[in-house]
Amino acid sequence: MRIDLNSDLGESFGPWPMGEDTALMASITSANVACGFHAGDPGVMRTTIALAKANGVAVGAHPGFQDLVGFGRREIKATPQEVEDLVLYQIAALAGIAGTHGVRLQHVKAHGALYNMAARDRGLADAIARAVAAFDKGLILFGLPKSELITAGERAGLRVAAEVFADRAYEPDGSLASRQKPGSVIHDDAAVVARAIRMVRERQVVAIDGSVISLEADTLCLHGDTKGAAALARSIRKGLEAAGIAVASLA
Amino acid sequence: MRIDLNSDLGESFGPWPMGEDTALMASITSANVACGFHAGDPGVMRTTIALAKANGVAVGAHPGFQDLVGFGRREIKATPQEVEDLVLYQIAALAGIAGTHGVRLQHVKAHGALYNMAARDRGLADAIARAVAAFDKGLILFGLPKSELITAGERAGLRVAAEVFADRAYEPDGSLASRQKPGSVIHDDAAVVARAIRMVRERQVVAIDGSVISLEADTLCLHGDTKGAAALARSIRKGLEAAGIAVASLA
Amino acid sequence: MRIDLNSDLGESFGPWPMGEDTALMASITSANVACGFHAGDPGVMRTTIALAKANGVAVGAHPGFQDLVGFGRREIKATPQEVEDLVLYQIAALAGIAGTHGVRLQHVKAHGALYNMAARDRGLADAIARAVAAFDKGLILFGLPKSELITAGERAGLRVAAEVFADRAYEPDGSLASRQKPGSVIHDDAAVVARAIRMVRERQVVAIDGSVISLEADTLCLHGDTKGAAALARSIRKGLEAAGIAVASLA
Amino acid sequence: MRIDLNSDLGESFGPWPMGEDTALMASITSANVACGFHAGDPGVMRTTIALAKANGVAVGAHPGFQDLVGFGRREIKATPQEVEDLVLYQIAALAGIAGTHGVRLQHVKAHGALYNMAARDRGLADAIARAVAAFDKGLILFGLPKSELITAGERAGLRVAAEVFADRAYEPDGSLASRQKPGSVIHDDAAVVARAIRMVRERQVVAIDGSVISLEADTLCLHGDTKGAAALARSIRKGLEAAGIAVASLA
Repeated sequence: MRIDLNSDLGESFGPWPMGEDTALMASITSANVACGFHAGDPGVMRTTIALAKANGVAVGAHPGFQDLVGFGRREIKATPQEVEDLVLYQIAALAGIAGTHGVRLQHVKAHGALYNMAARDRGLADAIARAVAAFDKGLILFGLPKSELITAGERAGLRVAAEVFADRAYEPDGSLASRQKPGSVIHDDAAVVARAIRMVRERQVVAIDGSVISLEADTLCLHGDTKGAAALARSIRKGLEAAGIAVASLA
Repeated sequence: MRIDLNSDLGESFGPWPMGEDTALMASITSANVACGFHAGDPGVMRTTIALAKANGVAVGAHPGFQDLVGFGRREIKATPQEVEDLVLYQIAALAGIAGTHGVRLQHVKAHGALYNMAARDRGLADAIARAVAAFDKGLILFGLPKSELITAGERAGLRVAAEVFADRAYEPDGSLASRQKPGSVIHDDAAVVARAIRMVRERQVVAIDGSVISLEADTLCLHGDTKGAAALARSIRKGLEAAGIAVASLA
Repeated sequence: MRIDLNSDLGESFGPWPMGEDTALMASITSANVACGFHAGDPGVMRTTIALAKANGVAVGAHPGFQDLVGFGRREIKATPQEVEDLVLYQIAALAGIAGTHGVRLQHVKAHGALYNMAARDRGLADAIARAVAAFDKGLILFGLPKSELITAGERAGLRVAAEVFADRAYEPDGSLASRQKPGSVIHDDAAVVARAIRMVRERQVVAIDGSVISLEADTLCLHGDTKGAAALARSIRKGLEAAGIAVASLA
Repeated sequence: MRIDLNSDLGESFGPWPMGEDTALMASITSANVACGFHAGDPGVMRTTIALAKANGVAVGAHPGFQDLVGFGRREIKATPQEVEDLVLYQIAALAGIAGTHGVRLQHVKAHGALYNMAARDRGLADAIARAVAAFDKGLILFGLPKSELITAGERAGLRVAAEVFADRAYEPDGSLASRQKPGSVIHDDAAVVARAIRMVRERQVVAIDGSVISLEADTLCLHGDTKGAAALARSIRKGLEAAGIAVASLA
């Protein structure tokens, strides 16, 4: 039994810091590094890669829509070709910077609205998978279990990783409950740790209606932008390890 | 006797076309492709690389300051670290896209204000050379003959290429005459062709004061953004070849 | 019988020219000037306003999404508050520049995806109308006849103007036929002129299925970004005037 | 005896917060609000204006270079026309948003590199003064005492305000000591308060070499982006008032 712990990092921009990257690095095994379109800039990318390397954390690209003010969280009706182009550009930029540090990218996780749109839209999912496969067939593509992104990755011959969220409620069909819904975010740290352990050990989670559903879990996302994120990350890692689960990157 | 003919291409952006890229490709041997900071976007980069490949033209990165509205032509007082970061980011992005077309970058030519500042400023020149060398020791760095950029490239162990301009007047010290000066741009096509031939064959040019100066010439820049650029490019190439000069890329 | 002729202008950006603004000014009565978010920049806004003033053409704001590379043509899922904020910002910027030329804005026409989304979405339509009314109750709000934007403008106490397109096909329900549909754009100049005259004189147009529909027509849009736009604009104006229709701005 | 206390506010952007605006509002009398080019966005501008109004703080525009990643702190070699255009655009945008809250702008203070360049460069200083005067002759222009900006404002017929910094060391010639110099920033809060009082009461300050110099002081800048900024602001205001100095906005 094993799990990868990933987190979105490198989301500072110019004079504006964001997140607790240094503190989180101690708990995670994979870093999704912003590539300058929704967050991050060339200098932040460099320091984040160096920080990940120093902590033995695997590095992945975290490409998003070119929408700084909206932080890549707003859906933009882009064509598959536009999405393929912007994903390839961002992966390439990050991979090149990583290469100068002797770091090879492990994975790609789309950000925000792009991730959510590609979970449902086969055309966009294929566009992302094409960009990843064209750049490097060895990259692992992250996505929601059973989402269009996962099947697109498989079609493109990529290794894929099913991503789960221990602090988010699930619908009975296995999709994430909308953040608008009451109870969609779980704020009790102990409950989050327990859910994480059950997700990894039993491939199960209690959905928002109380039913038990099963789901794949290759990597678990630790949110970095909430207060107390670093402390929760430590608790989750400690809880998983205490339960006999190996915490390790995917590669 | 041989010379490379280079031109700045891929400077369209979003809905705005620029230049006569298709027509120029027939005359040049090296394309300097904009990387999205001063011009170009991920889609334009893709189509420009494909066009260069189809024409057997070598591809280079043309990184510039992040200043779309100023087209990278305005000096920005950036630190060497900032310059190193933004040059590396842009080279990496272009190289990654080129790689998906089976194209390996041949060279790097800084754009506009960045090129001019680095010609004079050793700190910035070293920053650019560091970025290029860190990314790929096999890349050729373009610069004005005897400029700080050329010596920085040599210090970094890179192959360098001295760039000349047949349609621009030179000062007696070998620097380019300011565009503000009368006579700084040569508009007579026949004169431009004759200057190009003399530059390559004799490593000489008549300066703005009438004196004859000598200068290195590995690559000759054909401007793409002026009216009649494609016709002038054809004349220059034909003239060079008629004079027994081999026109070929550097690699 | 009278009609206003409007066109989207000032869509150049930095080094990239767009459109035939100078030629179009002779035919139109209202200019929708881009405000720097999807096109235009502070310098282009200044010269466009001066050009409109010199031609006796009324000036309006043409606010769009902040998406240069997509030219504001891609839908962005923004909140009503975000839309209200970005519309107000853009109107204010243009109105301030116009004021220094002694020009008072006549109207507001949302651009591209924002215009189309607000035609269907009451929340966004109200957001635009709120921004316009908050800035200046005297501004005229443009919109498709019977669209949400028109009714939102009326709710906000604004004067509204129904906009028609003589070179675009209509569905039987009065909406514009999708550009994807064959026949959606009418390329025969004589047919376009005849449609324009009928729209103004009879408030009628032949829809894509051959049926005759009625529609309000306060202002007719002349596209500026197609080849031959200036010549078509002249033909339309001449045709309307020959049919006894007064061509005049709304104010 | 009276003094205005100003601070740069509204420098958050999209998802990135900056500064302690709410806490500072209690101590200051004039807010310099970022206008979206170096910081701030339309939503942040709205909430900052509302906050200033609720606190009875006068509002001014704080226009800067269009350089988000560099926070407007890097010199850009722009032409006077470009500077005039970008300053006018930003003042107009902020004034329009303020107007919808019933707030009229009191002043304009250029930001960062633009402020520093215009202190020395008459052409840029005149460009800023022209933009301000063209928009509203009633606006007060801030600048370093005796700087080109102050004399340009006077030439343009504007009311000007000499700005001083109690936490920065001065050269014997009255210019600010470079931040690179040891001792250029004064970290002892009590010393800062004492300097502020002497600046206002005696129009004097002890320069970095120990000499006493005299300087005009209409408004005193409280930095908002340092740790403990709000506490220091409170101490300065309390100290000034205890010394019998009226703290009030300029208008």
